[in-house]
Amino acid sequence: MTITAEVAQSRTGGGLSPIDRLHALVAADMEAADRLIHERMGSAVALIPDLAAHLVDSGGKRLRPLLTLAAARGCGYAGEKHVKLAAAVEFVHTATLLHDDVVDASTLRRGKLAANIVWGNKPSILVGDFLFSKAFELMVETGDVNVLGIIARASSVIAEGEVMQLKSANNLATTEEHYLQVVSAKTAALFAASAEAGAAVTGANASLVTAFRDYAHNLGIAFQLIDDALDYSGRQAEMGKSVGDDFREAKVTLPIILAYARADEEARRFWTRAIGAGTQTEGDLQRAISYIQDTGAIRETHRRAAHYADMACAALRKIPSPEIRDALIDVAEFCVSRGY
Amino acid sequence: MTITAEVAQSRTGGGLSPIDRLHALVAADMEAADRLIHERMGSAVALIPDLAAHLVDSGGKRLRPLLTLAAARGCGYAGEKHVKLAAAVEFVHTATLLHDDVVDASTLRRGKLAANIVWGNKPSILVGDFLFSKAFELMVETGDVNVLGIIARASSVIAEGEVMQLKSANNLATTEEHYLQVVSAKTAALFAASAEAGAAVTGANASLVTAFRDYAHNLGIAFQLIDDALDYSGRQAEMGKSVGDDFREAKVTLPIILAYARADEEARRFWTRAIGAGTQTEGDLQRAISYIQDTGAIRETHRRAAHYADMACAALRKIPSPEIRDALIDVAEFCVSRGY
Repeated sequence: MTITAEVAQSRTGGGLSPIDRLHALVAADMEAADRLIHERMGSAVALIPDLAAHLVDSGGKRLRPLLTLAAARGCGYAGEKHVKLAAAVEFVHTATLLHDDVVDASTLRRGKLAANIVWGNKPSILVGDFLFSKAFELMVETGDVNVLGIIARASSVIAEGEVMQLKSANNLATTEEHYLQVVSAKTAALFAASAEAGAAVTGANASLVTAFRDYAHNLGIAFQLIDDALDYSGRQAEMGKSVGDDFREAKVTLPIILAYARADEEARRFWTRAIGAGTQTEGDLQRAISYIQDTGAIRETHRRAAHYADMACAALRKIPSPEIRDALIDVAEFCVSRGY
Repeated sequence: MTITAEVAQSRTGGGLSPIDRLHALVAADMEAADRLIHERMGSAVALIPDLAAHLVDSGGKRLRPLLTLAAARGCGYAGEKHVKLAAAVEFVHTATLLHDDVVDASTLRRGKLAANIVWGNKPSILVGDFLFSKAFELMVETGDVNVLGIIARASSVIAEGEVMQLKSANNLATTEEHYLQVVSAKTAALFAASAEAGAAVTGANASLVTAFRDYAHNLGIAFQLIDDALDYSGRQAEMGKSVGDDFREAKVTLPIILAYARADEEARRFWTRAIGAGTQTEGDLQRAISYIQDTGAIRETHRRAAHYADMACAALRKIPSPEIRDALIDVAEFCVSRGY
């Protein structure tokens, strides 16, 4: 039995989701981080906090700052620096979302109109830059240059991942390996850095820092795989996103890579037109969903995600705090089960 | 006699411009910074160095890293950290140029097609983010968290300034004071931070650090005022920019503020249509240039710039190195005389 299956069996959720329960474990720290987030996104230029609040207060799960706070707690930290880091990683994440939505011309984000639709591309780009800078100001205040390096490196890796993704659009020759490189860079890097920074700032030993990093890195990959599956599950409207965004952008994600590999002649012609050439007509999204479902590509994507969730949980073996360890294991399990 | 006038009288340029001469004073350091710039903009994702090189190697003056290196030299520094800071401030500058050109939909930059035209907006946004992150990675390597804070604060102020500028477009009620706030934020902040960081990293005393900062802050304002004047001088094609970019964007810069304040009834109707409403037809740019020239708005903008150049030079009184001091005074003088 895999760790994930074990977890699913042994831990039955109450009314709260595992993410809510992890929130509850670090509730005071998260409240402090939230106060700091709202304080530091302030500016005499009113458009900045208005636009930032649109995204910051849109009901995001605060997964990355949660990882920072949980890692610090899991290391037995009694200081205050992790709160600044938590606010900083949420700012980095928010900045990348603002820029991503411009790059992808997204219309919806977390069930609301995307900021680029409400205010236009220009303010979205600039407020992203503002929040990114504010993230570094917060990190500077910790005085911990090592931790700053962790987040700075993740930030440049994210940008690399986004450019890689841009270049693999329309390319049906994209391999699963290349796709995983993109996911690792554009999503898992900030998950990993968020947890690593939270652990490192406590002065914890290297193996503990690595454990939290490895957990979050694998969680990030699992999380993105599920996200990419949801874009073809036909239920993503419930997730507050536009239906079929990846398809319209002709992004070659794992569901497409797997479906294309298993496609018959007719399906290959479809993928070559709709994704390879990017020529789409009405009904194409439904047809894509059918092909993806029929070839088992969604099921297979979920299986891959479960593998990374298992890896995430396995990395936690060395964590001394059973409370944090169990809560993080539940989160990993929940992330791969969401949206079914 | 003002300091600037004095300088103009006493220092006659040879074949090299004052900026070239300042370059020559820190030539070895600048070569090291250039090597670092090219090394750190590298990536396995080839589009990143390709796009970055398009701008980095387009013949920019490297004014900001020059300020960093000159300030460190002026403090008698014998270490290596200033080279990393110089590369970092050039990366921050390059990132803001990439994002600005997307925001302004610019077509030309330094006499070449802008990156957003060659590669599109998406890679420009993402490579900007990449370079911005790389700037912080470089600063982390200095281990000097104080200096990191100087650049991080400047970066958020730049973004604030850009948003302020966006909001004052089309607004003929923009005051000169508000315009100076924008210029101070979007341009002078990074000039100031570049010099301040170069001085601070040497461990120089606070008054010396402040002197370099004040010099560069005032130089930055003078520089931007001249830039804004050049956009209506009818000679900006020589500067490698698109003619009348500010006008087409309906940016309310000082030449327009001054010309509008001195406008007769007919000219006011013109400005209200072309800038206030942003409704422009052929021949409008020439008409704007005529109004601006006829009201003396360009001459007045140059006079304001000369004032800030004087302030810049005055700040240098405390600098112990006469070589650096004189070279920086010449640069300030040159910046307000360029493009005549």
